[in-house]
Amino acid sequence: MAKYHKPENRIVQELKDIAHKLRIDSIRATDASKSGHPTSCASMAEIMSVLFFHTMRYKLSSPKDACNDRFILSKGHAAPILYAAWAEAGLFPVNELLNLRKIDSDLEGHPTPRLNFIDVGTGSLGQGLSVSCGMAYVGKYYDKASYRVYCLIGDGESAEGSVWEAMHFASYYKLDNLVAIFDVNRLGQSEPTSLQHDMEVYRKRAESFGFNAIVVDGHDVEELCKAFHEAANTKNKPTALICKTFKGKNFPNIEDLEDWHGKALGDKSAGVIQHLESLIKNKGHLQLHPQKAVIEDAPKVDISNVTLASPPEYKLGEQIATRFAYGTAIAKLAASHSRVIALDGDTKNSTFSDKIKKVDPSRHIECFIAEQNLVGVAIGAACRDRTVAFVSTFATFFTRAFDQIRMGAISQTNVNFVGSHCGVSIGEDGPSQMALEDIALFRSIPGSTVFYPADAVSTERAVEIAANTKGVCFIRTSRPNTAVIYKNDEQFKIGKAKVVKSSNKDQVLLIGAGVTLYEAIAASDELAAAGIGARVIDLFTIKPIDAATIIANAKQCKGRIVVVEDHYPEGGVGEAVMSAVAEERDIIVKHLAVPRVPRSGPPKVLLHMFGIDAKCIVAAAQEIIKK
Amino acid sequence: MAKYHKPENRIVQELKDIAHKLRIDSIRATDASKSGHPTSCASMAEIMSVLFFHTMRYKLSSPKDACNDRFILSKGHAAPILYAAWAEAGLFPVNELLNLRKIDSDLEGHPTPRLNFIDVGTGSLGQGLSVSCGMAYVGKYYDKASYRVYCLIGDGESAEGSVWEAMHFASYYKLDNLVAIFDVNRLGQSEPTSLQHDMEVYRKRAESFGFNAIVVDGHDVEELCKAFHEAANTKNKPTALICKTFKGKNFPNIEDLEDWHGKALGDKSAGVIQHLESLIKNKGHLQLHPQKAVIEDAPKVDISNVTLASPPEYKLGEQIATRFAYGTAIAKLAASHSRVIALDGDTKNSTFSDKIKKVDPSRHIECFIAEQNLVGVAIGAACRDRTVAFVSTFATFFTRAFDQIRMGAISQTNVNFVGSHCGVSIGEDGPSQMALEDIALFRSIPGSTVFYPADAVSTERAVEIAANTKGVCFIRTSRPNTAVIYKNDEQFKIGKAKVVKSSNKDQVLLIGAGVTLYEAIAASDELAAAGIGARVIDLFTIKPIDAATIIANAKQCKGRIVVVEDHYPEGGVGEAVMSAVAEERDIIVKHLAVPRVPRSGPPKVLLHMFGIDAKCIVAAAQEIIKK
Repeated sequence: MAKYHKPENRIVQELKDIAHKLRIDSIRATDASKSGHPTSCASMAEIMSVLFFHTMRYKLSSPKDACNDRFILSKGHAAPILYAAWAEAGLFPVNELLNLRKIDSDLEGHPTPRLNFIDVGTGSLGQGLSVSCGMAYVGKYYDKASYRVYCLIGDGESAEGSVWEAMHFASYYKLDNLVAIFDVNRLGQSEPTSLQHDMEVYRKRAESFGFNAIVVDGHDVEELCKAFHEAANTKNKPTALICKTFKGKNFPNIEDLEDWHGKALGDKSAGVIQHLESLIKNKGHLQLHPQKAVIEDAPKVDISNVTLASPPEYKLGEQIATRFAYGTAIAKLAASHSRVIALDGDTKNSTFSDKIKKVDPSRHIECFIAEQNLVGVAIGAACRDRTVAFVSTFATFFTRAFDQIRMGAISQTNVNFVGSHCGVSIGEDGPSQMALEDIALFRSIPGSTVFYPADAVSTERAVEIAANTKGVCFIRTSRPNTAVIYKNDEQFKIGKAKVVKSSNKDQVLLIGAGVTLYEAIAASDELAAAGIGARVIDLFTIKPIDAATIIANAKQCKGRIVVVEDHYPEGGVGEAVMSAVAEERDIIVKHLAVPRVPRSGPPKVLLHMFGIDAKCIVAAAQEIIKK
Repeated sequence: MAKYHKPENRIVQELKDIAHKLRIDSIRATDASKSGHPTSCASMAEIMSVLFFHTMRYKLSSPKDACNDRFILSKGHAAPILYAAWAEAGLFPVNELLNLRKIDSDLEGHPTPRLNFIDVGTGSLGQGLSVSCGMAYVGKYYDKASYRVYCLIGDGESAEGSVWEAMHFASYYKLDNLVAIFDVNRLGQSEPTSLQHDMEVYRKRAESFGFNAIVVDGHDVEELCKAFHEAANTKNKPTALICKTFKGKNFPNIEDLEDWHGKALGDKSAGVIQHLESLIKNKGHLQLHPQKAVIEDAPKVDISNVTLASPPEYKLGEQIATRFAYGTAIAKLAASHSRVIALDGDTKNSTFSDKIKKVDPSRHIECFIAEQNLVGVAIGAACRDRTVAFVSTFATFFTRAFDQIRMGAISQTNVNFVGSHCGVSIGEDGPSQMALEDIALFRSIPGSTVFYPADAVSTERAVEIAANTKGVCFIRTSRPNTAVIYKNDEQFKIGKAKVVKSSNKDQVLLIGAGVTLYEAIAASDELAAAGIGARVIDLFTIKPIDAATIIANAKQCKGRIVVVEDHYPEGGVGEAVMSAVAEERDIIVKHLAVPRVPRSGPPKVLLHMFGIDAKCIVAAAQEIIKK
C-alpha cells in the first residue's frame, strides 16, 4: 500500500470546521424551504467534508469532466448537504442554498441532473450503487482511467435488494475504483432501522459480498481520511466504508432521537446553529479548497452518429425473429463504433445480445439475474456520454426495474432497452414469461420512444435510430419468426407509420404491431376475399405515435379502426391509438388485446384463444363496419 | 435439539429411488412437450424426494389445507419435477405428466394456482422467498401453528436482490419455521453462475444475513434428512440449506455441462432414462408415501364480510387528506376483524398505515425499505385466505415491485395496495417521490380494481370494498387535504361513478379524480360564471370504469369530455376514459395530464405549471366547446 501520511493538524481542524459549516448550511436551507432532511444531512457531514475537501479529485470549472472522480448520493433526501458541499467548494454562492426547493431554483428536494454537478437523479432509495457500478466499470474497463467512484448509501436504504445486487456485481468485476460508503445513522423514517448500530453485521455482509470492509467512526475525519487512502490502495476488490454515525449529529436535543426525520428545525434552528458555530475553530474564510489535481487520462469520446456497419441484408418473405435481428444489429453497431455496449441478465442467448461478443467480447457486460442492477449499471455506464448502452432481457422482466427506469428518465438517461419474448406469442412457457404490460410501462416514461418493429429490416433500423436518440428508448422484439416485409433500403423515422396494405375502397383500418401486424395482414386478405377492403398500418413507433397518418387513413376508411395487440388492454398500442384520435369526431376504435391472465400453449392457439389472431380481427372488422 | 434418528436403510434407498423416478418423470414430460427444463429438475431430485416423502407434513386429500407444510418452488422453471413429486405422492396419475404445457392441461410451463397444490405462480425469479416469508410470518405470529415453510431457490436467481431482502426479513423476524433451500447447481441459462460452486461464499452470505446455514451434498439423501431435522430444531433463526448439486445430475454426457438449459433431451432421452432406471434398486411400486401426520393446530379463519367498525364520521367541507382517511379506515377494519393486517416499508407515518397499531400493534408488519419483499410478504400472508392484507408505501415506490405485483395477479392474490403521495400535488419533494405512472401500472394488472377516491368518505368505503374484493386492488391516496364532498351515508360501488355537479344545459363534461376533481369543480364554477355549463364526474374506480355513466353524460354534454389527471398522459385516467368511449361516434376527449418530468415547488404552482389546475381546465373546456 502506498504509504499513508496523516493530514496535518491544520487540515484536520479545517475538515472538522467544514463539516459543521455544511450542517449549518443544511439547517438554513431546509428552514428556508420549511421542509427537507437536515438530520439526515448531519450524520454525513464529516464524510462530505473529507470527500470534497481532501480525498476527491475534481475540477470545479467542469463538474462533469470525464476525468473527475464521481460522487453519487444514493440517499438523495440528503440533497441539501450535497448542494452545500459544492457551494462551499466554490461552484456557486452559498446563499443560493436558501433557494432550496423553490419553483425557480434547480436545487430541488432531491438531486436531479438539472444541476450541472449531478449525474443521476436519486431519491428513490437503493439505486445509487448500481449506477456507481456502471461508472466504475466504464472507468476500469473502457476508459482505463484513474478516476474513482464514491457512492454514499443510507443505512435504511441498504435494506433494498438492489444494493446487494450491486455489491455482488462490484466484487465479481473487481471494481477497486469504487467505494461504497454506508452512513449508518441508526434511524429510519418511521422507526430505528432493523440493524441499528450493529456494525459487525454490516461488516460481515459487506465482506461476504466480496468487499474490503472498513468500519469507522463516521464523525472522525482522521479515520475517514485514512480509510479512503486504504480504499484507493486496495486492489482487485471494491471497498465498503461502514461509518457509524448519528442522525442529527451535533444538534443538541435532536441528535440520535426519533421523530426528526424529514423535518426542518424551525424554532430550534437558532440554538442548534449557535452550538455548531461554537464548534468551529477557524472562523472566517476556509483555507481548504479542492486541491488535488485531476489525472487527465480519460479518453475523449464522441458517441454521435452511430451507424450500422452495413445495411440490412434480407430477402422479402424471409422468416427472421425480430429478437434475432436485434442481435445482428447490435453487432453491426458495435463493429462501427467502439463505445456501443450491450448488457444482459443471463438471457443473452435468448435476446441474442450475445452476438455483440463476436465483434468484441469486452463490449458485453453480463449482469446475471439481477434486473434492477442491470438497468442501474446501464444508466451509470451511459452517464457523461461515455457509452451507447443497450440493455436486454425478456421484456416482462423490465417490470423488475420499473423504478430504476422511471428514475432513469429523471436522470435524463439515454439508455436503450430491448425486451424480447413479448406477449402470448411466446407460447408454452406461460404467463410468467410473457410481456403483456411492457408497452404500458415504457409509454409511461416521460420523453420515451417506444419502437415495436414487425420485421428484421425495421428492427435493425430501430436499433440504429435508438442509438442516436435522446431519452429512454424501448424496442419490443418478438420470439417467433416473422416474414421480412420491408426492402433493405426502406427508410424509417420515429413517429412515422407505414401503410402496408390499402385500396381505394377500404372500409376499415387495421392497426397491428409485431406479430399482430401479420395477423392484420392475413385478416385483410380474408376480408378482401369477402369483398371488404381493410387497410393495414404498421406503426413502427408506438410513442410518439403517427397521429396524422392514423387520422388521415381512418377518415379514408369511414372512421373505423380495429387495433390489435399482443399486450393487456391497458396502456398499450390500443390506448396509444385512442389517444391519437381522441379529439376527432367520427372516428371509432375497436380494440383487441389479451383480456386476462393467459396460459401455456402453442402460440397460434393462444393468439386465437385470447382474441388477437386473424380470425378475431376479421370478426371485429365485420362488426365495426356496421357502425 | 430433539434427537436425530437416521432413517432406516430401506427408507434411504427408497428416497434415492424416488429421486431417480422424479428425474425420469421430468425427462418424459419435457420430451412430450418438446420444451422445458429437465436438467434444472435433475439437480433438485433428491431434495424433492426427501421433502415430499420424508420431511414434509401434508394431506394429499387437501393440498392447500391450512395445517399443511408449505412448499414454494421459487425456481419455477423446474415445474416438471414439482408436478412429478405430487403425482408420485399420489395426488394425480403419473401419466398426466405427459400433458405438460398443453393447452388443455393446467400443468403449465411454470406453476400457477390453476393447480390445486400451487399457492403462488413462480417463474419470474427470486420471488419465492418473500412469499414464503409471508406464509412463515403468518404461521408463527398469527396462526401460531406448527406448519413449516420450505422454499427452493435456484443459485442463478439468488443474484436477485429480492432474495436478500427476504433473507433479511426472515432473520429479523426470527422465522424459525422457514427453510430456504439453495439448489447450487453451478450453471445459469447462458453461462455458469457468478459464484459457481463456491459454497463457502453462499454460507457466509447466509450467515451474515442471520441464517443458520448448513452446506450439504444436495444429492445425498441422508445429509438432506439430517439437515431438515436440524432446521426443524433450530430456534429463533431461519435455516438456509445450501445444497451443492449438479445440473443434469445422473444424465450421462449432460451432467454439469453448459448449453443444456431449458432443453428437452430429445433423442438423448432413451439412453438417459435407461441409465436412471439402472440406478433404481427397488423396482415396482413405491413403498414410501407421505406419512407424517399433519399437526392440526392452525385455527379456522373466515375473511368474508370484513366491515368498517363504524361508518365514516365527517362534516361536509372538512379538510382531510385521503391518505389520512386510509389510516382511519384500516384501523376500523382491524377493529372489526382480527385477520386484517397492514404492511409498510418504513413510510407508515406518511401513509398512515401506522394507525392500525393503535388497534393492535401486532397487526402491522414493518418491512423496512425493501418494497419487493414488502409486496411478496403481503402475497404470502394472504395465501390460503389466512389474512386480509393491505400494503402501503408511496405510490411511486410500487414501481419497485411491479414484477411482484404482476406475478401476484398470476398467483390470484387478493392483496390490497394503497399508494400515497401521488402526482405533482405532493410538491417540494420533487419528481422522485411523485407517483405519475402508478395508475398505468395497476390498470395493466389483469383483474385489478383501481380506486381513486377524492374525499375521506369515499376513501373509507374504498378500503372497505377492497377488503372484500377478489384480485389485486389499488387505492390511490393523496398527500394534500381535500374537502369532504360526500355525506357519511353515501353508497359506493365498484364501477359506479358519481355525477357531482350538473345542469340541464351542460356543454362539456369534466372528469377529474383525487385532487383534480376539485380543480374540475372549481373550473365548472368559473365556467358557469361565464355562462358555460360544465358537468363534473367523479369516477371513484378507474378500473373498472363506469362507461355507461360517462357515455350517457357525455352525450348530454354535446359529446365533449375534458379529463384531467395528476399522472403522466399514458395509461392513466385519460386513456381509461378514452377506452370507455372508443366505440362511440361523436364523443371527443380532451386530455390534461402531466406532460413531462415535473420538479420541486409548491403544489398549487405545480398543478398550474403542468397544466392540470382549474385555469387549465377552463381553457381546455373553452377550446373543446368550439368542436
